[in-house]
Amino acid sequence: MLPDPETARAARLICRDGAVAPTAGMAPGFTQCNMISLPRDWAWDFLLFGQRNPKPCPILDVTDPGDFRTSLAPDADLRRDIPLYRVWRDGELVDSLPDVTDLWAEQGDLVTFLIGCSFTFETPLQQAGIEVRHIAQGRNVPMFLTNRACRPAGRLHGNMVVSMRPIPADRVAEAAMISGRFPAVHGAPIHIGAPEALGITDLTQPDFGDPVAIHPGEVPVFWACGVTPQAAVMASRPPFAITHAPGHMFITDIPDSRWQI
Amino acid sequence: MLPDPETARAARLICRDGAVAPTAGMAPGFTQCNMISLPRDWAWDFLLFGQRNPKPCPILDVTDPGDFRTSLAPDADLRRDIPLYRVWRDGELVDSLPDVTDLWAEQGDLVTFLIGCSFTFETPLQQAGIEVRHIAQGRNVPMFLTNRACRPAGRLHGNMVVSMRPIPADRVAEAAMISGRFPAVHGAPIHIGAPEALGITDLTQPDFGDPVAIHPGEVPVFWACGVTPQAAVMASRPPFAITHAPGHMFITDIPDSRWQI
Repeated sequence: MLPDPETARAARLICRDGAVAPTAGMAPGFTQCNMISLPRDWAWDFLLFGQRNPKPCPILDVTDPGDFRTSLAPDADLRRDIPLYRVWRDGELVDSLPDVTDLWAEQGDLVTFLIGCSFTFETPLQQAGIEVRHIAQGRNVPMFLTNRACRPAGRLHGNMVVSMRPIPADRVAEAAMISGRFPAVHGAPIHIGAPEALGITDLTQPDFGDPVAIHPGEVPVFWACGVTPQAAVMASRPPFAITHAPGHMFITDIPDSRWQI
Repeated sequence: MLPDPETARAARLICRDGAVAPTAGMAPGFTQCNMISLPRDWAWDFLLFGQRNPKPCPILDVTDPGDFRTSLAPDADLRRDIPLYRVWRDGELVDSLPDVTDLWAEQGDLVTFLIGCSFTFETPLQQAGIEVRHIAQGRNVPMFLTNRACRPAGRLHGNMVVSMRPIPADRVAEAAMISGRFPAVHGAPIHIGAPEALGITDLTQPDFGDPVAIHPGEVPVFWACGVTPQAAVMASRPPFAITHAPGHMFITDIPDSRWQI
């Protein structure tokens, strides 16, 4: 049975009314998205960046310039319905805001990209009896900037960001297969174990989000992450960008099951 | 075991040397692609068209303006390595040529898109003992223009083209599942049986390719097709375009297995 779309709408309205918190666990069963808005002049570069890096940047929708509507949630307002936005100028984080309506108008021609999020496959992981640690601990998922360069596109370049979930060694293969059925929302892990090979030296110090406990017998499993565009913004320094704050996602009306192969 | 990349290169050289024939069955195990080249001014519209219509237009690579190289086959020449090209002006087919080097230079800024092709999942269908009729009959796959509108993008619009394969009724579910594991190359069928619901009135009269026999007890199964961009060119009338001729594909160095989920 499909989840009730009213729960997605209600969750967005809570965010629109000013609630500022990570969205993990909100409106379960509905697809959550990463977001990045760039001036029209940078839109080609980013759409191509997504095409060339589909694991970290699976683009699920693109708006017309200046538009704040998306086909993924027709009554949503992309300027207000994310709990917390980040504002970037020349690659520097300059502000965090719960509402970017004024900036949207000031820029005039922002093209907004909505990007799949690994939260989509967390429900099937849990249904298979695989604990998702950051949910169990009530935290934001831990994310790490890796040493893996994305394939550049025009002026955009940067390294891949990954999310990490500790998985018991005897469930790792199953976690890979379950998530692999969702290629539109990052799909299978890009790396299992051996964090040092990704340039990650300390799993207790994520670059984004919160650290989580890793129990004996568990292996750190790494999925490509939709915060990668923020790393590209930091590295490539477009004059202006708005993104979601990591873990504070856009909640769509699309059931997670839409993306399952 | 991976297939020998030399077979892909050799197949491209045969095409480059002037052989004009459909590529089905050439360099088995290597990904074949649909192609469309458009002036730079139309590139955003097409990349967005692909993002919005990933079933018929799964974009596997995009070149820089004017470039004739692709990361899918580093030693290939996109101006010469397809057996037969189609040249379009203002939406009208004006020429069919085995070499478009001169036109490439004349235009100067063509951006080329390589798009996944259903040939990739034909090998696993055959390995599962499901006959692929057009291969068995030595013909080009039959393709039909449907009544299903693609989601428009900028100036580009048009209806979806599908390829059709007759499948015994007791193997249809398996054919759907096998092809569904290849979402980057059209994936699962978009329609099974009931051709009239797609606006197809006569299965013996395909709009592109050749008709194939349908035996008693077989069901026509329809997959989204990478000839859809050509239907969009006809409907949207960009000033200039080059495409492959249907069935005459670009052979890459990428093993088909790369796309399997």
